[in-house]
Amino acid sequence: MPRFPQYSPAVAGIPGSVYSTLAHRLATFEGETYPLHVGDTWLEPPEGCRMEDLRTADYPGLHRYAPPHGLPALVEAVAEQVAARTGVPTTPNEVLMATGATGALGAVAGALLAPGDEVLILAPYWPLIAGIVRSFHATPVPVPYLGAVSNAVGAVEAVTAHRTPATVALYLNTPNNPTGRVIPRDQVEALADWGRAEGLWLIADEVYEDYCYRGEHVYLRSLAPERTFAAYSFSKAYGMAGNRIGYAVGPAEAMDQVRKVSTHTFYSAPTAGQVAALRLLEGRGEPWLSTTRERYRELGAAAARRLGLPAPEGSTFLFLDVADRLDERGLLGFLEDCVERGLFLAPGPSFGPYPTSVRLCFTSAEPEVVARGVEVLARMLGRFPPQEVTV
Amino acid sequence: MPRFPQYSPAVAGIPGSVYSTLAHRLATFEGETYPLHVGDTWLEPPEGCRMEDLRTADYPGLHRYAPPHGLPALVEAVAEQVAARTGVPTTPNEVLMATGATGALGAVAGALLAPGDEVLILAPYWPLIAGIVRSFHATPVPVPYLGAVSNAVGAVEAVTAHRTPATVALYLNTPNNPTGRVIPRDQVEALADWGRAEGLWLIADEVYEDYCYRGEHVYLRSLAPERTFAAYSFSKAYGMAGNRIGYAVGPAEAMDQVRKVSTHTFYSAPTAGQVAALRLLEGRGEPWLSTTRERYRELGAAAARRLGLPAPEGSTFLFLDVADRLDERGLLGFLEDCVERGLFLAPGPSFGPYPTSVRLCFTSAEPEVVARGVEVLARMLGRFPPQEVTV
Repeated sequence: MPRFPQYSPAVAGIPGSVYSTLAHRLATFEGETYPLHVGDTWLEPPEGCRMEDLRTADYPGLHRYAPPHGLPALVEAVAEQVAARTGVPTTPNEVLMATGATGALGAVAGALLAPGDEVLILAPYWPLIAGIVRSFHATPVPVPYLGAVSNAVGAVEAVTAHRTPATVALYLNTPNNPTGRVIPRDQVEALADWGRAEGLWLIADEVYEDYCYRGEHVYLRSLAPERTFAAYSFSKAYGMAGNRIGYAVGPAEAMDQVRKVSTHTFYSAPTAGQVAALRLLEGRGEPWLSTTRERYRELGAAAARRLGLPAPEGSTFLFLDVADRLDERGLLGFLEDCVERGLFLAPGPSFGPYPTSVRLCFTSAEPEVVARGVEVLARMLGRFPPQEVTV
Repeated sequence: MPRFPQYSPAVAGIPGSVYSTLAHRLATFEGETYPLHVGDTWLEPPEGCRMEDLRTADYPGLHRYAPPHGLPALVEAVAEQVAARTGVPTTPNEVLMATGATGALGAVAGALLAPGDEVLILAPYWPLIAGIVRSFHATPVPVPYLGAVSNAVGAVEAVTAHRTPATVALYLNTPNNPTGRVIPRDQVEALADWGRAEGLWLIADEVYEDYCYRGEHVYLRSLAPERTFAAYSFSKAYGMAGNRIGYAVGPAEAMDQVRKVSTHTFYSAPTAGQVAALRLLEGRGEPWLSTTRERYRELGAAAARRLGLPAPEGSTFLFLDVADRLDERGLLGFLEDCVERGLFLAPGPSFGPYPTSVRLCFTSAEPEVVARGVEVLARMLGRFPPQEVTV
């Protein structure tokens, strides 16, 4: 039992960022920096959907609380979009507007998890999901999956190998942060069937649904609507992560429980961000999205080409193993060498058991800045362009 | 251990709103409505601090993530203000910007509480605090206090009577929602001393610090800085609850733990709302605040006078026992009768063991609307104005 000056053991067990000391050097670095360690975009959101477009005269109450479930018009528009995309009839009471997908997934975790529970997490995974599970006193169990599993039989073997009597849920993220991979249909189907047979809740983090460049994004909820919570994000879709607007979709009765936690961790999603989101869904978003999807696709392919990797299938990330470039200082030494050249990358251990990997985001800065950062990395990996001539 | 289709027992134990069926009638009620059940304001925030004032050209990155701790300039301005008001030297790493005080208190609860822990909560209390404690698997223990305790000796007796070996923290809210009372200095001092002697964490919800009309608001952190977390809100201070911007202040090392939870429940506070908050602290807020404080003071006094209650000492609420007006249908019947007249009030049980009380907010609608709502309530309580003549 914690006593002053101690803390919750669950939270004390969440590691601080090993990278924060390096990240601090961004502010003091002299010379150009390449901040490819954050997952964000250099783009501003579509015109007409920015804060300056939201006039109090047009939206009385713009600065007041929204209903805890979300602005009714937005919740309806979201439910319609989800139904159209997934093929699953979706009612407003199956939707919760949240402070980003982080808030949505936090509320889902809070509604489902009890101390001692385990959650299977397909790895490499989005870094925050492990801490979300721990924040509510349960244990994240990484399942090496993306890049390790190649068919439906392997999918079931991978999760079965980590399932215990304490397992209550399976989390997956596709299109995937950090690997840039998309889990194919046959695997998603196999995982949904397995989850149903095992009596588990399923949690699908699908915030990159709009950024699938190859193959098909399969909505988990279309396969197991009775047990699936799905999380989405206006942050990732439309370059408005600072607005903190995402949402969760799940079975209506279960969402009543989820809303109890969201009410007690952020109360309601920000009102102005919800109005901006509604304006996006009313037609202003789609052209921006189409253009941006093509730009991201090209940027990802170009970065991958220069690094000798396959083009990403989705998301805005590349994940690479740099084991053969590490010296006795290990990954931190490599990251320090990067920082000395102005290049900031995210360390593999943030994403699971990947002590020799790094993640880069190819949309986190202006394309020419990203290209120069990728060039720095390519050279550190010994990939000099063939046309280069020493002068 | 929860299994599909079950939920976290802690969250399943949080009651849903008994009032939600009545509140739904707001949308369909024919005739004027008096929505005095919500804690909000009819005022728009100060000019220059609204969404339409935040131009992307002036604030590049306005729609991108803020740092998880908060925008550095805002965190510094907040630390300065806190230091000036409390007399406690306050550094930026003792501050966390959050999704309202709700997000701040949720993160504090997550950082401190483990399953089985108990938190003493001075009652009547802000309704969400009980659910916040439960969301993180601990137990809220109401301590009847405001209106029941009248001196320092009584203060210590009240908390001592409810302390058990499982008690880890004491929560108090002053100026108080829902009672409109302010806890006097001698009592706050006695509680701080007692908390220190008992080895507890202290949590001070001081979101109405700017709305103290009589007496003095005493900052708990000025008395026990080593163990106190304090929560504040731009929502309440400046009429921008929809922006979801509040903050927590506490010991630096402890705030590292709090930030772990905030990162995993909402990641960062909304960027635009933080920019608006910074513009407030740069001078645009103070004149609005002075004017608003006087208006709220007068509105509270007028409402109290009409209802035969003492004027509120602080906050934007009145809390009254209507036991002698209840019939066999109990409080819900009384609230239904109110709703039939267009009047919406918050039920006493939301605030602790108060089965025959109601709360009204005297700033939640235009003053003339509030006045008419108060008139409806006064008549239901049998308080007809002496000058009234039947025609």
